Amino acid sequence: MAKKKNAFYAQSGGVTAVINASACGVIETARKHGDVIGKVYAGRNGIIGALTEDLIDTSKESDEAIAALRSTPSGAFGSCRYKLKSLEANKREYERLIEVFKAHNIGYFFYNGGGDSADTCFKVSQLSEAMGYPIQAIHVPKTVDNDLPITDCCPGFGSVAKYIAVSTLEASFDVRSMAKTSTKVFVIEVMGRHAGWIAAAGGLVAEQGIPVVILFPEIEFDQTAFLAKVDDNVKKHGYCTVVVSEGCHYPDGKFLAEQGTRDAFGHAQLGGAAPVVANMIKDALGHKFHWAVADYLQRAARHIASKTDVKQAYELGKAAVELAVKGRNSVMPTIVRVSDEPYKYKIGVADLKDVANVEKFMPRDFISKDGFGITEKCRKYLTGLIQGEDYPKYANGLPVYVTLKNVAVPKKLAEFKL
Amino acid sequence: MAKKKNAFYAQSGGVTAVINASACGVIETARKHGDVIGKVYAGRNGIIGALTEDLIDTSKESDEAIAALRSTPSGAFGSCRYKLKSLEANKREYERLIEVFKAHNIGYFFYNGGGDSADTCFKVSQLSEAMGYPIQAIHVPKTVDNDLPITDCCPGFGSVAKYIAVSTLEASFDVRSMAKTSTKVFVIEVMGRHAGWIAAAGGLVAEQGIPVVILFPEIEFDQTAFLAKVDDNVKKHGYCTVVVSEGCHYPDGKFLAEQGTRDAFGHAQLGGAAPVVANMIKDALGHKFHWAVADYLQRAARHIASKTDVKQAYELGKAAVELAVKGRNSVMPTIVRVSDEPYKYKIGVADLKDVANVEKFMPRDFISKDGFGITEKCRKYLTGLIQGEDYPKYANGLPVYVTLKNVAVPKKLAEFKL
Repeated sequence: MAKKKNAFYAQSGGVTAVINASACGVIETARKHGDVIGKVYAGRNGIIGALTEDLIDTSKESDEAIAALRSTPSGAFGSCRYKLKSLEANKREYERLIEVFKAHNIGYFFYNGGGDSADTCFKVSQLSEAMGYPIQAIHVPKTVDNDLPITDCCPGFGSVAKYIAVSTLEASFDVRSMAKTSTKVFVIEVMGRHAGWIAAAGGLVAEQGIPVVILFPEIEFDQTAFLAKVDDNVKKHGYCTVVVSEGCHYPDGKFLAEQGTRDAFGHAQLGGAAPVVANMIKDALGHKFHWAVADYLQRAARHIASKTDVKQAYELGKAAVELAVKGRNSVMPTIVRVSDEPYKYKIGVADLKDVANVEKFMPRDFISKDGFGITEKCRKYLTGLIQGEDYPKYANGLPVYVTLKNVAVPKKLAEFKL
Repeated sequence: MAKKKNAFYAQSGGVTAVINASACGVIETARKHGDVIGKVYAGRNGIIGALTEDLIDTSKESDEAIAALRSTPSGAFGSCRYKLKSLEANKREYERLIEVFKAHNIGYFFYNGGGDSADTCFKVSQLSEAMGYPIQAIHVPKTVDNDLPITDCCPGFGSVAKYIAVSTLEASFDVRSMAKTSTKVFVIEVMGRHAGWIAAAGGLVAEQGIPVVILFPEIEFDQTAFLAKVDDNVKKHGYCTVVVSEGCHYPDGKFLAEQGTRDAFGHAQLGGAAPVVANMIKDALGHKFHWAVADYLQRAARHIASKTDVKQAYELGKAAVELAVKGRNSVMPTIVRVSDEPYKYKIGVADLKDVANVEKFMPRDFISKDGFGITEKCRKYLTGLIQGEDYPKYANGLPVYVTLKNVAVPKKLAEFKL
């Protein structure tokens, strides 16, 4: 029993259409390594589940339920936005983690998240050296923002890219139909924080002859050049599609969405970047517009997930467990691109110290010279990631997504106040 | 030649994911009736194409291209928002229509649209009696708002209902994952104008245990009751989903989206109903929120179209041509529901005079007593309409949607100023 340790798995940060596919990969692979890995305990709501000893016993879930995670969006065990402070600043939390790990014989720590979560995982991976508790911490990458370094892409991104490319294509066909007497400009706002990867996906529709203008966070917003570009498109094509990243900002750093408007009660204005851009066009050029803010719809859209993305999410969960079985600590499995067309990749490994707290932005040569489109290099990069469809099963017109039983592991310790 | 007449077909009003499936039904069926129907001329941008003699010769399109319309969203020939005045008020336009019809030997008029378009089609159908030109005008129903009378449902609605139900389900799973430390309320704004049919589709997720609050245009907005309902859901479930119809309004008729806010230049505020509702919740209950405005994404979402809806759209286009071949005028083929579970329907016929300018709202017994949900009767009504998936083909990660050649018919007449 001493050698066989249980595993802790948790989901962190914003969830995605495929983070549960990684969970599926972790749990199914751990079940195959029953000789060295005991049970997989999932943290209810990420690292908070570990701190509060709120653990879910995944062994209570059937093989069928775990398999169904592969086609279920969101975080099946709950996620959290909670960043551990440094060991020096908050030793109490780390001591508590060790207390919980000891109480439940946990020797493997799998953390499934983005940049902030990689930092948490890295800190936990240092516990062996710093505090003498033997733990192997492996990070499973996940972020729709696609902004983790080293790995070629991040699970979650391929599916949101596919969703945005498909939605932008469909809405562009719509505005093209309406442009003669009605709407001439359609604006869609997309996620991505400080990185323009998701916005870039909207640029894939240009291949089909659609006039699309992209506003990247990486390019300082130039209102005059932007309006001239939209005007030119409407004159040439009769309509124009605009994809605006939530992180798009003026040279002084002010986001487009921050207009400083107030309602009667003094509350800040309510809209996002899309209505701001749409109204800017209306004021300057007089065109009728429509705008959409996809928000959660884009990152939850399992119904149109990229098959490549689902596969990679699963494989990285699987690889994380295999790295643990091989005795590795403080690492993250990665996607290594082998070729663009046809798209081929293999699984690699990165040291967590090189991953934590590094953001990867769009390279300048992925963005066209005028700053409003994507280059051929970017198109090649993106196209591989949206290959294939991986439809969920449907019953009665709706997708069949699983909700787990999430049975709690009996607590052994005193309560811990966060 | 005298007996064999050409047909005019046009798309009108807001386009949908399946209006081209109706076009496909019209054109394929007309091609089968070559003995009585000559060519199908499509109006470029709806009725405007007829007035300006801007006709598209669909006989220049291959059978494959026409078949591909079935899985292509938007309006392949362009649509318009243009309502003919009454015969008394604008005789000039009707005389021009007759002039164009005569010049191109057009004896059949197929108009594909919603309530306003049914009115246009009705007026054209009166030309035989009123102005002595023999024309058979048949309306092909289409509207995502589902607000046409007599027909059990309208093509376009089933697909948008499916999109909204799926998206609401997926986003609800997302917010449920995040609720512990982050977002607790998700608000999605949907279309539908003065009718709550699309909003009702969001209510289908309640079957899966999701706490959802719907704001219908048919129910006057009661802020106190609404906030109490959201508060109750968050206390019980930890999170809450809100579906708000763009037509939702206060008792005095003011829409939720009209907040009277102004920016520095005095422009009206930019947001829709979703950010207004989200901020209202934040101010009263303090919950972190996310909001989405689906806008065109919902009505263009051919990638997740309802198979039932696609089939009905095609069949109604086909039925319109068959009615014309039988000599009918001033009618609209309809969907007649035969049973709920399993969902069965047949094709019927309505007189256009009973359809034009009548809006069908949600019956009160489709809305729950408290006004925030749907009843079992409504669930049964909606469930039939979202049955089945009808995926488009994909190439290189994106759907393959057709863009027709749209070859113009040579003009024979002098220019006409609109």
